[in-house]
Amino acid sequence: MLRVGLLAAGLIAGLSPVARAAEAVTEQWGIFDLTLAGPATGNPFRDVKVSATFTQGSASVTADGFYDGGGTYRVRFMPDQPGEWRYTTASDTPELNGRTGAFTVVTPSPGNHGPVRVAHTYHFAYADGTPYKPIGTTAYSWVNGTEAQQDLTVRTLAASPFNKIRMEILPRVTDSRGTASRPMPFAALSGGERDFTRYDPGFFQQVEKRLGQLRELNIEADLILFHPYGKNDGLRLSATEADGYLRYVVARFGAYRNVWWSLANEWDLIRTRTEADFVHYGELVSAHDPFHHLLSIHNSAVIFNHTLPWITHASIQNGSAVEASDRAELYRDVYRKPVVYDEVKYEGNLPQRWGQLTAEEMVHRFWEGTVAGTYVGHGEAYADDPDSWLSHGGRLRGQSPARLAFLKTILADSPAQGLDPIDKWQDTPAAGVPGQYYLYYFGLNTPTTWPFQLYKNGIRDGLRFRVEVIDTWGMTVTPVPGDFVTKQKDNYNFTDDQGRAVALTGKPYLALRIRRVDDTPAVPLTAPNGE
Amino acid sequence: MLRVGLLAAGLIAGLSPVARAAEAVTEQWGIFDLTLAGPATGNPFRDVKVSATFTQGSASVTADGFYDGGGTYRVRFMPDQPGEWRYTTASDTPELNGRTGAFTVVTPSPGNHGPVRVAHTYHFAYADGTPYKPIGTTAYSWVNGTEAQQDLTVRTLAASPFNKIRMEILPRVTDSRGTASRPMPFAALSGGERDFTRYDPGFFQQVEKRLGQLRELNIEADLILFHPYGKNDGLRLSATEADGYLRYVVARFGAYRNVWWSLANEWDLIRTRTEADFVHYGELVSAHDPFHHLLSIHNSAVIFNHTLPWITHASIQNGSAVEASDRAELYRDVYRKPVVYDEVKYEGNLPQRWGQLTAEEMVHRFWEGTVAGTYVGHGEAYADDPDSWLSHGGRLRGQSPARLAFLKTILADSPAQGLDPIDKWQDTPAAGVPGQYYLYYFGLNTPTTWPFQLYKNGIRDGLRFRVEVIDTWGMTVTPVPGDFVTKQKDNYNFTDDQGRAVALTGKPYLALRIRRVDDTPAVPLTAPNGE
Repeated sequence: MLRVGLLAAGLIAGLSPVARAAEAVTEQWGIFDLTLAGPATGNPFRDVKVSATFTQGSASVTADGFYDGGGTYRVRFMPDQPGEWRYTTASDTPELNGRTGAFTVVTPSPGNHGPVRVAHTYHFAYADGTPYKPIGTTAYSWVNGTEAQQDLTVRTLAASPFNKIRMEILPRVTDSRGTASRPMPFAALSGGERDFTRYDPGFFQQVEKRLGQLRELNIEADLILFHPYGKNDGLRLSATEADGYLRYVVARFGAYRNVWWSLANEWDLIRTRTEADFVHYGELVSAHDPFHHLLSIHNSAVIFNHTLPWITHASIQNGSAVEASDRAELYRDVYRKPVVYDEVKYEGNLPQRWGQLTAEEMVHRFWEGTVAGTYVGHGEAYADDPDSWLSHGGRLRGQSPARLAFLKTILADSPAQGLDPIDKWQDTPAAGVPGQYYLYYFGLNTPTTWPFQLYKNGIRDGLRFRVEVIDTWGMTVTPVPGDFVTKQKDNYNFTDDQGRAVALTGKPYLALRIRRVDDTPAVPLTAPNGE
Repeated sequence: MLRVGLLAAGLIAGLSPVARAAEAVTEQWGIFDLTLAGPATGNPFRDVKVSATFTQGSASVTADGFYDGGGTYRVRFMPDQPGEWRYTTASDTPELNGRTGAFTVVTPSPGNHGPVRVAHTYHFAYADGTPYKPIGTTAYSWVNGTEAQQDLTVRTLAASPFNKIRMEILPRVTDSRGTASRPMPFAALSGGERDFTRYDPGFFQQVEKRLGQLRELNIEADLILFHPYGKNDGLRLSATEADGYLRYVVARFGAYRNVWWSLANEWDLIRTRTEADFVHYGELVSAHDPFHHLLSIHNSAVIFNHTLPWITHASIQNGSAVEASDRAELYRDVYRKPVVYDEVKYEGNLPQRWGQLTAEEMVHRFWEGTVAGTYVGHGEAYADDPDSWLSHGGRLRGQSPARLAFLKTILADSPAQGLDPIDKWQDTPAAGVPGQYYLYYFGLNTPTTWPFQLYKNGIRDGLRFRVEVIDTWGMTVTPVPGDFVTKQKDNYNFTDDQGRAVALTGKPYLALRIRRVDDTPAVPLTAPNGE
């Protein structure tokens, strides 16, 4: 269901110097869609530039506009504050220049928390401060399938735990669905060729429809701007055309609060672009996105340099890294940014080793990533199904999503600031907040007992904790009777003052949740990795 | 034994416009030590600048000089080509300016391979192309102990496998040996204070004596320029004084071909310096070192940004990373530079967990690092010995050095280009050169058989390999009878055409060396990590 104010507010400016759009109500982090009439001749996509500067008090935001066909230009704005905003347009085209107006932004509707930002160095939160803990999935080409398939995908997502989806913009030209019947991003020329300086607004409008639906579902759209697959048109763009495409995409989609930019999938497999090209694209997107969406780039064998300042988080393909939390943690230290393992191989039964994880292994990787203080992405693919979720969305059939929904409930009930490794580079697979909350994960180990023990940071003698045993596959949480009370054991660890241990079932994939239950003051924390 | 030409060639310039130093013979990558007479009044360390430009044909190298006390100035030059060189000095001090001369550089003596450089992205080689495969150790304060202790350390090193040593320049003021009887780097003032703008040449000359001895032993001196320990004077330098100290050190020591610069040990524990300070120091050292020595910086809990362009290799403290090769490998992908795990905890029996590795675990970490395509550093410390090697050099007593000597023989007999992971991010702990050479390491696993299997890259049916079983702890190499002949098994791997397996002893710490023995042409390699 679309709420008023989340819809693009359509109004035509230009009738008077200050057009008062009394009928248009935009909410904070919604889209104010400034519509302007201008020239329809020549190549307006390439040759006509328009922007608008939006102001409120001392705040000023300039957004690029774009041509939407039929003599219509739009400048989209995602206001980050309620109240009165004014705008002034700028263009070399006189009829688009110097248009001014004002509009009112109302407070956000329930469920609208704004765009996702980096928080606490390694984690995420919505702009209103609400924690955002990604449980991502991937359905690369879903917005390029049939309407029915896309509708099905939206229904599936609505019933799933996923709050982020990786998706390509540019259609795969060679895939079995053909291209003739679909809108394509670039304008068709005779002979099957394309004009890469003109776009088909219909293509982008249908993507926007899906972005809006994802936004309603509070699902972040991790938009893949270039990819190496299926002889897609992005591989053929000249340098100028590539810049033009990126600016068009950023101008069109940037006001959707749920957009993330992923410059590429498997950037190093895109043979027509160099690493320097992608640095340029990153700088360009960063410079032209006034809303500062999350921005990263995904690798095949060659990880991009995620230390670059315009990269907000590390988007990494590496299945091996999340086989164990002590591996998964290492990239955090390197990047000092959120680490999202967007591709860790996929649940399924493909002959290729990237698509034959058991559901247990997929869930296991999510948990290992979680107790490493990182985030993991899902996907599934099946040899007997050319319409597998990974490529085309549709229906999920794997056994991992139910367990990821369970993990999501655990995360929802975890500290808002995110989970960080408790004692990094040591032996303990635990994340949490020292002295307050601990999530241990035993992975493939099958212990029958766990002697209660906490690393010293944030602990002193006499603190009380309650322990729950989590079966991550069985999706159960079982409280352990009684409190555990800390008593210093040695230079590094505290145990229970009665020497108590936690009984475990001897199954794999067990975890522990340990929460402080006394109300004494917090113990001051020391630096991590204290020796 | 010092050879002629490795000794500093002392000559006094300034007697004639072109002083011909017929008696001075400098060899390539030796030190030409240009000696100049100048003012001894005021503070020549701080106030007198002199440099010299050395030319041969179109080659031109400018090196900073330094004041060595007693009215003597020196400009040191490490020539990288034999033949005739000329020099011209430059200084604002007239008597040091415009001095010219010429000298002859002869070809290097046997054993002089020049400075170590990065080679093949992840590895090292001497300037003459000879592979350099670090087996490093650490004795932080050894050049600040007694003469007898230093002499003992040199003898110990001569009999050890180590070809690199991490060592601090700046003495620990608080250590038990006292400071009164030792030369100190900064000039003494009354009342126990120091003038941080004046240096004691005697201190630096004794360090140089040890650098020269290490050079004779072909041991690289990984010089730690700042460290957090023992209230050393480096902690107290002002910004200007710190820059002056670094420039003095670079000017004095930079012509020693075996010098590496380590900006800091545990940089993040140095509370008087910021990360930005160390970026500045790195840029300064890089700009003022005309000989381009290897340059890095070592961490405690916060890894430095080793992607910065002036950092030649990643110097990392992380013991956990080398517990398993699939962890150790991860930093390679991030930095695309050599990765040297300079601190992986230490062999010994300290109560601190950083100093209680068994010898087996220390050796194990070297092997895990090796099959990850990285390098590892050694150290040892004992609770019953305040003179432990780690701090003061002296004698080695651990059980790991003998096994590291054994590893060194394996590396000496491995491909010159270095060992790279064969099939990264997958399950196989093997490094080597695809199609030619493989080193598998089983670590803590205790297999009794290994079905012969090689990843597809560089392999086709019918290639012949010989296998040797290595007991890395027992220090034995046992050939397996007969050849193994490749036959494709599936999309990823080849096995033996007779399905043969290698029998193993069931001990831990076993490795395999597998070498191609047929002489058919090499199979073209594909990109790594092919799916």
